[in-house]
Amino acid sequence: MKLDKLVGERFKERPANCTFDSHALMIRGGYMKNVANGIYALALPLRRIMRKIEQIVREEMGAIDAQEVLFPMALPASLPQESGRYDKAKDDFVGFNDQSKTPYVLGAAYEEVALQFVREYGQSYAKYPFTLYQFQAKFRDEMTGLVKLREFIAKDAFSFHISQEDLDRYYDRCFRAYERIFTRVGLTGVVPAVSDYDAAGCSLSHQFLLRHPAGEKSIAACSNCDYRSNLEVAENILKVVRDDVSDEMTLVLTPEMKTIDSLSEFLNIPKEKCSKAVVYQRGTDDSYIIVFLRGDLDINEAKLRKYIGCDIYPALITLESGICAGYIGPQNLSEDITVLFDNSIKEGNNLACGANQEEYHYTGVDMRRDVPNAKYHDFSKILEGGICPKCGKKSILFSNGFEVGSIIKQGTKYSEAMKVRYTDQEGNERFPAMGRYGINISRLAVSVCEARYDEYGPVWPMSIAPWQVHICALRFGNQDVAAVSMALYNDLSAAGVEVIFDDRIESAGVMFADADLLGIPVRVIVGPKTVGNGVVEIKARDKSFSETVPTQDAAEYIQSLIKRMSIVNEGSL
Amino acid sequence: MKLDKLVGERFKERPANCTFDSHALMIRGGYMKNVANGIYALALPLRRIMRKIEQIVREEMGAIDAQEVLFPMALPASLPQESGRYDKAKDDFVGFNDQSKTPYVLGAAYEEVALQFVREYGQSYAKYPFTLYQFQAKFRDEMTGLVKLREFIAKDAFSFHISQEDLDRYYDRCFRAYERIFTRVGLTGVVPAVSDYDAAGCSLSHQFLLRHPAGEKSIAACSNCDYRSNLEVAENILKVVRDDVSDEMTLVLTPEMKTIDSLSEFLNIPKEKCSKAVVYQRGTDDSYIIVFLRGDLDINEAKLRKYIGCDIYPALITLESGICAGYIGPQNLSEDITVLFDNSIKEGNNLACGANQEEYHYTGVDMRRDVPNAKYHDFSKILEGGICPKCGKKSILFSNGFEVGSIIKQGTKYSEAMKVRYTDQEGNERFPAMGRYGINISRLAVSVCEARYDEYGPVWPMSIAPWQVHICALRFGNQDVAAVSMALYNDLSAAGVEVIFDDRIESAGVMFADADLLGIPVRVIVGPKTVGNGVVEIKARDKSFSETVPTQDAAEYIQSLIKRMSIVNEGSL
Repeated sequence: MKLDKLVGERFKERPANCTFDSHALMIRGGYMKNVANGIYALALPLRRIMRKIEQIVREEMGAIDAQEVLFPMALPASLPQESGRYDKAKDDFVGFNDQSKTPYVLGAAYEEVALQFVREYGQSYAKYPFTLYQFQAKFRDEMTGLVKLREFIAKDAFSFHISQEDLDRYYDRCFRAYERIFTRVGLTGVVPAVSDYDAAGCSLSHQFLLRHPAGEKSIAACSNCDYRSNLEVAENILKVVRDDVSDEMTLVLTPEMKTIDSLSEFLNIPKEKCSKAVVYQRGTDDSYIIVFLRGDLDINEAKLRKYIGCDIYPALITLESGICAGYIGPQNLSEDITVLFDNSIKEGNNLACGANQEEYHYTGVDMRRDVPNAKYHDFSKILEGGICPKCGKKSILFSNGFEVGSIIKQGTKYSEAMKVRYTDQEGNERFPAMGRYGINISRLAVSVCEARYDEYGPVWPMSIAPWQVHICALRFGNQDVAAVSMALYNDLSAAGVEVIFDDRIESAGVMFADADLLGIPVRVIVGPKTVGNGVVEIKARDKSFSETVPTQDAAEYIQSLIKRMSIVNEGSL
Repeated sequence: MKLDKLVGERFKERPANCTFDSHALMIRGGYMKNVANGIYALALPLRRIMRKIEQIVREEMGAIDAQEVLFPMALPASLPQESGRYDKAKDDFVGFNDQSKTPYVLGAAYEEVALQFVREYGQSYAKYPFTLYQFQAKFRDEMTGLVKLREFIAKDAFSFHISQEDLDRYYDRCFRAYERIFTRVGLTGVVPAVSDYDAAGCSLSHQFLLRHPAGEKSIAACSNCDYRSNLEVAENILKVVRDDVSDEMTLVLTPEMKTIDSLSEFLNIPKEKCSKAVVYQRGTDDSYIIVFLRGDLDINEAKLRKYIGCDIYPALITLESGICAGYIGPQNLSEDITVLFDNSIKEGNNLACGANQEEYHYTGVDMRRDVPNAKYHDFSKILEGGICPKCGKKSILFSNGFEVGSIIKQGTKYSEAMKVRYTDQEGNERFPAMGRYGINISRLAVSVCEARYDEYGPVWPMSIAPWQVHICALRFGNQDVAAVSMALYNDLSAAGVEVIFDDRIESAGVMFADADLLGIPVRVIVGPKTVGNGVVEIKARDKSFSETVPTQDAAEYIQSLIKRMSIVNEGSL
């Protein structure tokens, strides 16, 4: 199409309220237009990018036997009520009453609708496995990501299985499909990190995180092997450190020494030799939980929550509780309190611990000798430079990222809640296991921009670029320029190449600035001088090449170039 | 794909609550599944049909220079408030408050969002004309159409122009694009009818109506020429009927003769010689309007509303009004009353009229002589068999239909309301003229089914069929059948043909019933007997052919068949 017909303003100034460069470029390039807080209208270039991403996702989902469906945007509130989701997270839903006063919600998650299909279709084991997916606009009243998008297009997929093993196999297939999707759309920095699946009551989950310093999620990655995990769930592996000789346990007056820092300084021992106590209460009955861990470490609430099996909150320590804040130790605690020990103090000796009386600590505590019945678990946060749970090297590095996709083994949680069953080969009624696989298509589009831009604009990969070729006709008033550029535009278009054609009477500077903002991978410059020499100039937006090609060979050459650039992009698959 | 992997139950029994056969077939064939009242989830076959329709619409919109965009599903209520639409039709909106208590509505119409683009992009006349369109899910709390769909996918388009003439030209282009769309998706019975554009404050509008006896809209169509109009706006052309001699005007006692029927019988004159009075009140100030028309005709409220320029309602005639119900005539009416005359009594003589006193009428009224200042307009409903406003023949026929699309010349109504201006060549600020062009994609899909089915299932045209070829392998246990059918499936798939493959161990009856419900245009039957003879059977779903083809030629033959069947479908373009 002709560039001067493309609806959308392009401009130089960085717009206000854009924290991220990708956001600023998408606004400056006329890709999207703010309609309300976190809500955008997409113009043609971004619509084309989104459609190409959707098509890649469609191909890869098709390749793992997923069937495209379309679920409704408006769901009766009775559906998430049936699964229990609505009552758990009422504030996450937005909705309205219809004319008959029936409450509806905008679809936020679609397990319940997918299970309606299964209730009818999946009654026999012989129908399994199968997978349904859809593209759907979603409204979520939160503001995260590179562009704060409250409305976005999501790809939801749900798979159904008659065994955990089959779910495991499909989960792995989908994992690889996601890797292919991210590679094909041009994102190389996506890290699949094991995530806090337990918070969702599931057996395993990965987030696919685009590494970014300003990201919202933290990744623990091993620099030596392929271990990648969300910090929340990364196992904290610790070597047992035990002195050869255990001192005697001694009661020591430690007035005002309520923190590990002050205690460590006062006793002149390293923090690693102090035992830290953290106190929580159960959400269900407010009963107390105390966890002891090494003084230099922090508690990982997600791990504790998973172990406890219910919601927890930081304790309010009352006089009535009998807990002596600042001086808590493992000895003689009330039997009403759940006492837990982190792996970090396993086998520890010569430790300083609270004595459970005001202003006193014990020194010389030997966990083996003095707390013989302690049971140890992993409750602490992993440290940067810590030991990799997979390869055992001290090679854990932290980084941040933005979530662009997630996959979750949900198991039978929702089929049980919705009472959806199938009959197995022996005639028994069973609940199918489910997996859920999401991609935020809108955020993915922006992420590609954030991962691939220079100071002049986005650098779209061939696979999702809004057009493949951008022709700049410098001095279109020149008859030869007009003839050559028009002929090239027509030849390429006739061959099915997606071309945007700039035939405006503008300076080269204006034309190139616009072309940079559109970020089309191949740029063809037709000017009076080169045309006079019988050639056109062909440049890559990513500056990887710049060459002149005889005019008569240009159309064919560009088509082979597009093919090569498409292959490079998928080369790592 | 393999039929036994297709998610969705197919069954024989007609489901309850389906008035229309198309609805019943879509449910029986596993195309869609009810989620709530008027809300459906679409399974793979219907999703594929919808995508193909969308692609046809996309191509035709692209061909008239429209650019695909994506507007948000959730809009701040302030947008339709700005245009005045919200306050006019508050009940038509459903919405919610976000966390900050800002009211949002689900997008019902998108003029306001489209104009936000224009406000920024369309500031100079040189940018015009341009057209934006999108596909968007909509929720509408009403239940009309072949399937009562409260949620559906709509195509919205908006064009912008610097002159009415340019809008007129584009409107005509879009009209023809719509005709091509309906033809390409396989609908031949779509009638473009001029509709009640004035109700929407626009200068012209067409509804595209699929003729159907149970349809919700009434069409006035000429059997002699191409005149097509919604009954609401069809002009009622009447020949002047005037007796040679006018009698004298005479006051006649007509007790209890308050209706045209009784008056006509009492006076022994035809109803055509009686003058009927209908009384309305203005919505704005409740003032009275009386319209006189021929006794055998009915008032067309849409025409009256358009003439009056505000909302009207049937009058409540009080004693205070001074109106003498049942005996209303044109003479001596109060000056506070707006008195109007329909074309049907123009030049009329020897008429019976009310005398504006209880129990009295006049006979022998001559409009020319006795009501010399009357001004006449078209206020009456057209009659079946009436005169065509275009060709003048008495050839008007009525029919019913379902709306599948509409196009509207909105002019500057919304750009004025939203204060969106451009600067013309002389530097003056002006409002751009707008056109709106909608298609209900979901209803269109169902309409094709309703227009093309037999007692066994839908008969999809090649252009939008969910798959192009359906292979039934009878007795897949037979090695030759398995080998031939698998090879054909693989060859066709490799050639890019969309094939659904039924390799289940089922009876031919079950397989054919399922194939009929899926309605795929080309069916290939591979059975032991034909395979033994070195041939396969190829049948059209629409029964237009049935033939045997040598096995080795089958793949190539089927591909040429698909090409032929695609051309036939578009042949009338």
